[in-house]
Parts: sequence; C-alpha cells; structure tokens
Amino acid sequence: MSEPVGSLGLLPAVVALGGGHGLAASLTALRRITDRLTAVVTVADDGGSSGRLREELDCLPPGDLRMALAALCGDDESGRTWADVLQYRFTGDGSLREHAIGNLLIAGLWERLGDPVAGLDMVARLLGAKGRVLPMSSVPLQIEADVLGVDPRSPDETSVIHGQHRVAMTTGEVRNVRLLPVDPPTCPESIESVLDADWVVLGPGSWFTSVIPHLLVPDLAAAILTTPAKRVLTLNVRTDAETHGFSAARHIELLAEHAPKLRLDVVLADSRFVGDDDHLEAYAHSLGAELVVEELAARDGSARHDPLRLASAYAGIMGI
Amino acid sequence: MSEPVGSLGLLPAVVALGGGHGLAASLTALRRITDRLTAVVTVADDGGSSGRLREELDCLPPGDLRMALAALCGDDESGRTWADVLQYRFTGDGSLREHAIGNLLIAGLWERLGDPVAGLDMVARLLGAKGRVLPMSSVPLQIEADVLGVDPRSPDETSVIHGQHRVAMTTGEVRNVRLLPVDPPTCPESIESVLDADWVVLGPGSWFTSVIPHLLVPDLAAAILTTPAKRVLTLNVRTDAETHGFSAARHIELLAEHAPKLRLDVVLADSRFVGDDDHLEAYAHSLGAELVVEELAARDGSARHDPLRLASAYAGIMGI
Repeated sequence: MSEPVGSLGLLPAVVALGGGHGLAASLTALRRITDRLTAVVTVADDGGSSGRLREELDCLPPGDLRMALAALCGDDESGRTWADVLQYRFTGDGSLREHAIGNLLIAGLWERLGDPVAGLDMVARLLGAKGRVLPMSSVPLQIEADVLGVDPRSPDETSVIHGQHRVAMTTGEVRNVRLLPVDPPTCPESIESVLDADWVVLGPGSWFTSVIPHLLVPDLAAAILTTPAKRVLTLNVRTDAETHGFSAARHIELLAEHAPKLRLDVVLADSRFVGDDDHLEAYAHSLGAELVVEELAARDGSARHDPLRLASAYAGIMGI
Repeated sequence: MSEPVGSLGLLPAVVALGGGHGLAASLTALRRITDRLTAVVTVADDGGSSGRLREELDCLPPGDLRMALAALCGDDESGRTWADVLQYRFTGDGSLREHAIGNLLIAGLWERLGDPVAGLDMVARLLGAKGRVLPMSSVPLQIEADVLGVDPRSPDETSVIHGQHRVAMTTGEVRNVRLLPVDPPTCPESIESVLDADWVVLGPGSWFTSVIPHLLVPDLAAAILTTPAKRVLTLNVRTDAETHGFSAARHIELLAEHAPKLRLDVVLADSRFVGDDDHLEAYAHSLGAELVVEELAARDGSARHDPLRLASAYAGIMGI
C-alpha cells in the first residue's frame, strides 16, 4: 500500500503556474509552507524591459521569470536585499532606462551559458532562492486575442489584438487568446515538474495573459491534464483590465473554454470577490472541484492577495 | 607600550591601492593572507562599458571596482561563479554590447542607493566578497598626460593626451600624468582605511593610469604619506604600452617625480624583471625602502603575477 508523501517526512512538491504579480503572490505564499516549490512561468511578455531584451538578445523575455525569482528570495536580510536589487529599474532616458537589474542578470547568464534553464538555475542558486523557476516554453511566445469592442464606436465588432502588452491593456472585452507559435516547445524540466508534483496551482494572475496561456502549450497542457497531482485554481481578488465585469464564475468558464478537458480538485476564491455569485459553486463542481472561499485579499484594500492569508489557505487545502 | 597588532590575534589590516588587472592580482594574493582587506580603486576609466555607463548615468566608472570585487570573491563554488558572472560581457551589437554584468549591477545599485560607497558595500555583501572595495575619489576623474613623440615624425615633440583609455594605449613616451579635476574630493572611508592600515600596498598595475593617480588625489596622497602603516610598492613583472622601455628603477623614479615626499618601506620586484638593473637597490634605498626580489611572474609566461607566489611574498614581508 502506498503511503501519503507526508509520511516520509517530506513536504508536498508544489508547482505554481502563472506569471507577473499573481504568480509572485502565489510563490510568496507557497515558499512559506513547502521547500519543494517550482514555478512554471509565462514567456510571452513583449513590453518594456523584457520586450527590448527579447528583441536585442533574441532571448526569452526575462521579466516574469525575474519576478518569480524575487518572490522566492528568503525573508532574511540577504534575501530581502536581493529581491529589491532584482526588481530595481534604471531611471533616466538612456539605453538602460527601465531595465530591471534582475532582467540584465538573467539575460547575461543566458548568453553566458547558452541555456535558459541552466541560467535560471544559476541565478536561483546565487540568490539562495527558495525554489526553482522554469519557463513554460523554451522559445519566446506571442499572445494574440480576439477582442470585442476595441473601438467603442463599434461595440459588436471583434478585432484581433497582437502582443501580451496590448492584450493586457485593452479596453475591449477579450473573448479568447491564442499563442504564436501555436505549438511551442516546452522544456522537459517543466513537464517533469508537473508530472512529479503533489499539487499544481494555477493562478492567480492576469487571466488571459498569465493564467490561460499554460493551457495552450500542448505538451504542458497535456501534463497538467494527466498529472496525478491535485489541481488548485486560485481566482483573483478583483477583476482587471483584461476581465473587467467578469464574475468569478465567468473566470472558471473561460478556463474551461480554452481547455475543455480540464478537471480541477479545488477552486480557491476570495470571499469578497465571490460576493453573492450563486453560480460559482456549480461551475466549480462542473469541473470536479470543491469550492474553498476565504478572506484572501490584502488588508490595505489593494488588488493583491495577502501572502500569509494565501499561505494559510494553501496549507489548509494541502493538509500541511 | 603598544603591542604589535598580531598579538591581539588579528591579521594585519591591508589597503591595496591601484586599478585594473594589477590591483586584481594584488587582491587575489592578499585575500589569501588576511581577512582585513580594503581596495582603494582608480575611477578614471573612460573607455568601453565603463565609459558609456559614466556618460549615460553620470556615475563613477564601475569597471575597475568590478574587477576588484571579482578578485575578492572566494574560492568556493559560489565565489567562483559570482566572479565569472560579474566579469561576463554581453556580446552582439545592441545597446548592451560589451557591458559587463557586474558593471550593470554596481551602476544599478548606485542609482538605487544614491551613494557609491553604500552601493559597493552592498554588492560586496551580496557576493560574500573577502574585503571592501572603495573608490579613490567620490567623483569620476579624467587623466591627462604629457606624452613625447606621439607622432613618430616628431619624436621630440610633447603632446597632451586626454583620457585614461588613450593614455594607456599611446605609442609615445608618457612623461607625466595629471588628474582633472586637479583637486578631486576623495571619500572619507578611503582616507580612514589608509590611516588605520597596518600595511599599504601600491601597485602593481598600469603605472601612469592605475598606480600613480592615487598620489595625485590630494587628501588620499596626504593619507598615504602620513599613515603610520608600512608602505609596500609592488613593481610589475613586465613593461606595457605605457612604460615600454622603462627599467624597474625608472618606475620608482617616476613615482617619486609625481610624489616627491613619498617614503616607502619595501619595494617588491620580480627577479626576471629586475635582471641586472644595478640602480634599483639604490633607488629603493633613496626612498627609504628595502628591496625584496622574488620570482613572482605567472608560470605560463604571461605578463601577470602568480597569485600564490605574490601571496607568499606579501606574507613574508608582513610577517604573517
């Protein structure tokens, strides 16, 4: 008879999928409850520092990976300092403007080592990061979206918008997203981490540009669908430009539209965001999931998860 | 009666003055024999990555400081990796070309913290560097030199050459160097380190652009002249573009011409470079110094000091 992993004295192996601030919130919470943590991160950013680096150096956009590494820095002085250094952006109007120091460090190591995973592993080791950071694809991606009513004079017209940055900023209603190339290669380490995990956590984050994309990389999506790990979907605490007006239930529906075979074990939602959304539990059940509703939002009222509330919720769900 | 420092169980406090590869060689040797080590580094570089950063960000040129920090990285895996990362330069022909990762890290922290010494101390701490790295001036400097025979058709004509990079590369005979501004401010930490040292080590390095400049910063020169520390001058193992054809004795004479009041305790020279230079001992004595001649050059025949031979010589001189 197989014993649960916990009986070996190991904490659960957790893979967090996402990008940007949402993934950083998840990692900041998860690193407090397990030491077996892997982030699988979107690589479709085409704006700002990441956009310029991917163009100049023909590399993966480092920004979301950097943010994940910063979130995995420890709470001691060295860790806090490194997180701050990684995130610092040059000011001024010269060639370095807006480049985050961490982006330059990661891009430099990629060039030095000639391998994205080796470079990320080296940065993580140098920082003493509390987990591993992997790209969701081994090639840089573009996001393309069908968006309704981009031009307010033609509210019923659907336009195709190209580029993660423009999709994330659109004033129209995003209907669905695609990746270019449509069948991007992922890296074996990301697949393995999902297949070997005890828990896979999807979200929170920008729904169309950071959460759904993982389900559009065929090999990664297959691993998410077939892994013996339990699957948690963490909803945002509020809607953003991509999802303004969407209910919590609509978020789950969108995920299912992009990955019809997806089954979930838990949907984790903030009590205030859920409000009196009666459909939510039914939507969760329709994907096989139990709905867990807790107070998760930051106490300052900003559109963020409180890391310790989120950590506590994950610990409860995972039985840690 | 004052006791020698050694009796307190402390290793001697050593300050190494210089820049570039010469200072790096000295630091790589000294970090093996003391844990109380400070580098005071030239900030006049105007070429390559450093030149572009000082122009774009209006900061000190970071290159010589970076090289000193890399030399102070430890011999464990983390230290060796960090040294490699700091020194790695971007390739390609974009805006990042030739920038060393370490230069970007240092310049970013300067901007973040608004203080050169605080930024260098933070980088040193993050790397686990085996000593402190300080700038010889708190403002970026220019080097200006009188050079004989720059134009081979007018071998007796003296020209003024501006900029460390051009002085270091000149085909003419450098007669003397000046700093612009002529009375640059230094930082209090550099002065204190010299005044509190047990040993001050000047050289090796590019004679006009890395060694002599320290004697041209008035406050720093005064500290070098008046410190109770013992003063060691380490000669190069070979001449370079700046000093082609100069004997070992001529190197000492040049130093005295730029700082007439300078007194030394030890002149350390490589046996092959000294050769049969009969004047050297007399020149050393004229500045109050004992001449120590040892085999110091790298075993591969390159124009570098062997770090362990140099460490052994310093340990002998300092009685460690």
